[in-house]
Amino acid sequence: MIKAFLGISVAAILQSGAVRSPEISTDRHVTFRIQAPNAQAVTVSGEFMRGSKPLERDARGVWSVTLGPVEPEIYNYTFTVDGVKMIDPNNPNVKTGSTPSTIASVLEVRGDQPAFYDNQPVPHGEVHTHLYESKSLKMNRRLTVYTPAGYAQNAQTRYPVLYLFHGANADENAWIQLGHANLILDNLLAAGNAKPFIVVMPFGYGILPGAPGQDPAAGFAPSDLLFSRDLLEDVIPFIDAQYRVLKDRDHRAIAGLSMGGGQSLKIGLNHLELFSYVGGFSAALTGVALPETFGSFMTDAQASNRKLHVLWFGVGSDDPFLGVNQAFANFLETGKIQYVFRKSDGAHTWMVWRRYLNEFAPLLFQ
Amino acid sequence: MIKAFLGISVAAILQSGAVRSPEISTDRHVTFRIQAPNAQAVTVSGEFMRGSKPLERDARGVWSVTLGPVEPEIYNYTFTVDGVKMIDPNNPNVKTGSTPSTIASVLEVRGDQPAFYDNQPVPHGEVHTHLYESKSLKMNRRLTVYTPAGYAQNAQTRYPVLYLFHGANADENAWIQLGHANLILDNLLAAGNAKPFIVVMPFGYGILPGAPGQDPAAGFAPSDLLFSRDLLEDVIPFIDAQYRVLKDRDHRAIAGLSMGGGQSLKIGLNHLELFSYVGGFSAALTGVALPETFGSFMTDAQASNRKLHVLWFGVGSDDPFLGVNQAFANFLETGKIQYVFRKSDGAHTWMVWRRYLNEFAPLLFQ
Repeated sequence: MIKAFLGISVAAILQSGAVRSPEISTDRHVTFRIQAPNAQAVTVSGEFMRGSKPLERDARGVWSVTLGPVEPEIYNYTFTVDGVKMIDPNNPNVKTGSTPSTIASVLEVRGDQPAFYDNQPVPHGEVHTHLYESKSLKMNRRLTVYTPAGYAQNAQTRYPVLYLFHGANADENAWIQLGHANLILDNLLAAGNAKPFIVVMPFGYGILPGAPGQDPAAGFAPSDLLFSRDLLEDVIPFIDAQYRVLKDRDHRAIAGLSMGGGQSLKIGLNHLELFSYVGGFSAALTGVALPETFGSFMTDAQASNRKLHVLWFGVGSDDPFLGVNQAFANFLETGKIQYVFRKSDGAHTWMVWRRYLNEFAPLLFQ
Repeated sequence: MIKAFLGISVAAILQSGAVRSPEISTDRHVTFRIQAPNAQAVTVSGEFMRGSKPLERDARGVWSVTLGPVEPEIYNYTFTVDGVKMIDPNNPNVKTGSTPSTIASVLEVRGDQPAFYDNQPVPHGEVHTHLYESKSLKMNRRLTVYTPAGYAQNAQTRYPVLYLFHGANADENAWIQLGHANLILDNLLAAGNAKPFIVVMPFGYGILPGAPGQDPAAGFAPSDLLFSRDLLEDVIPFIDAQYRVLKDRDHRAIAGLSMGGGQSLKIGLNHLELFSYVGGFSAALTGVALPETFGSFMTDAQASNRKLHVLWFGVGSDDPFLGVNQAFANFLETGKIQYVFRKSDGAHTWMVWRRYLNEFAPLLFQ
């Protein structure tokens, strides 16, 4: 996904090799191609459509199909060649993460106007990558941090912080590479639609599922517990020491998507001494026992409402987590907790999460 | 390649899904697997061997082969399934870049002791990603910068700078993701074997070959000219303004690999008013007219030798650029220019370039 940052669409201009894929026409039809002379069947599937479409073979053994017009967006897609799922070998724009299930090719379709997540000619923040020592997990871990435009120049200014978590199978770069969080915040800040703040993006697994010594049936819970310890005992102290941040609860927000949304809601709502803005994007609340998980925060709703400047969570109408998010809203309702529940179009995809960040960020630190 | 930074080998511990690949045994045999029930033939090829090896199919349609023992290193590899080259779909560690030809899976084989390029328990520097405005190229471009451990704390200290270039098909992240430049320098610095300095890694294409308006037959030359302008007119001023750097020639080095080695030698040796340390790693000097390209620097060898604190270039015995580097050495010899020509084992791979950085860095700013 790094290509999006070069200010030129590499996929669009690249013509090396005999086969060009994806090729985007001026009217936003997209042609996918792959050279596979010995294949019996090739299909493409992606976030721009439901199901899959067959490609057709030409005399040279190049398979192709043209789809569209496709709405301007950033989409994942894969080919399936004789039953083997694979990325588009002619597209350098590859989505990667922490597990193989996340690997896909990326199609960026541009509109006539730049999108809210595009690299626009505005002042840009900076993305920092650290290796920090996690004493709680006994390892060096990588941490991604965004500082807004002006951070280096305004050397006396302290900034609020958003802790922002990725989903399952992704990693600490996902909110930059796939979420364009830096570009979204650059654009909001330039338009005067958000306050300047720092974003901290840790690696969301305490330990990956299936790691040695971990019960494969135990799911994410042990990982979440370790992640929470690392966040509270290592990441936040590291940020407080390394960056010019405001260290009080009024200037700390916490949010995440999917697995990270479950984490941000659980950690945030149980640590209102640390956070006053809490967000969940398509939060993976499946299997979460609501009274046990959020009981202590609910016992004094008036006090919690006073402390919580914003509790915002959203989910798409085609997202499998719609039901658990609705149940969470109902649970908060019965407990008289104030919240914003944003039901939007869309499924469990980065298209939705980019938009949610664009909606959530303007609410912070106002 | 980001997995290498998490402090845990994800590929090694990940067991999700039915098929595990690559699996590394304690005696460093590596088993590659792919599920392809309909395939007629599957092979693997990679930097750990010459040629390719066939995989064998089991009753479930899973193909596999065990190779080794494999020396501790970081290797690229790909599968070929019925003639279609593809990455290992079960390995999240994917090498990406600016063109599709660079895409490959990555195998990290660890030894009993950590390697010079491994994430070790030493103080770590920081990696910064900027979007800067290139006035010369009229676009926003991404730039990667490494600051050594202690940079933030030693707020009065100014640092020397190494400008470090990637090769063809790669991008501004390559020296971090594939080269482990940050980890190599972290380790050298912790051991007292190098001075602390900043490393600046720009995107090495002025424009990609085959871009609209560029003659495909023109090769890299127009790109190199634009890259050189961007470096001199935009990148260096940006760094001088954003970082606490020493801005004189005695504290500037320039080096690169392959295409970037050609660039660093050409730019560095023709701008001794800016640089005093020049390096070329497997430099792509093919087609470079030596007298025309390096003539002005050669006219007063005594003066150039006084200015050049180090001119270091290396190439592997199996590298197709061995001949042009030998010719460059001969050319310098006749011109009475002082240089170090390092002929090593190895081919045109990151294995060689990581070692070259590890040898070159200790020579800088002494």
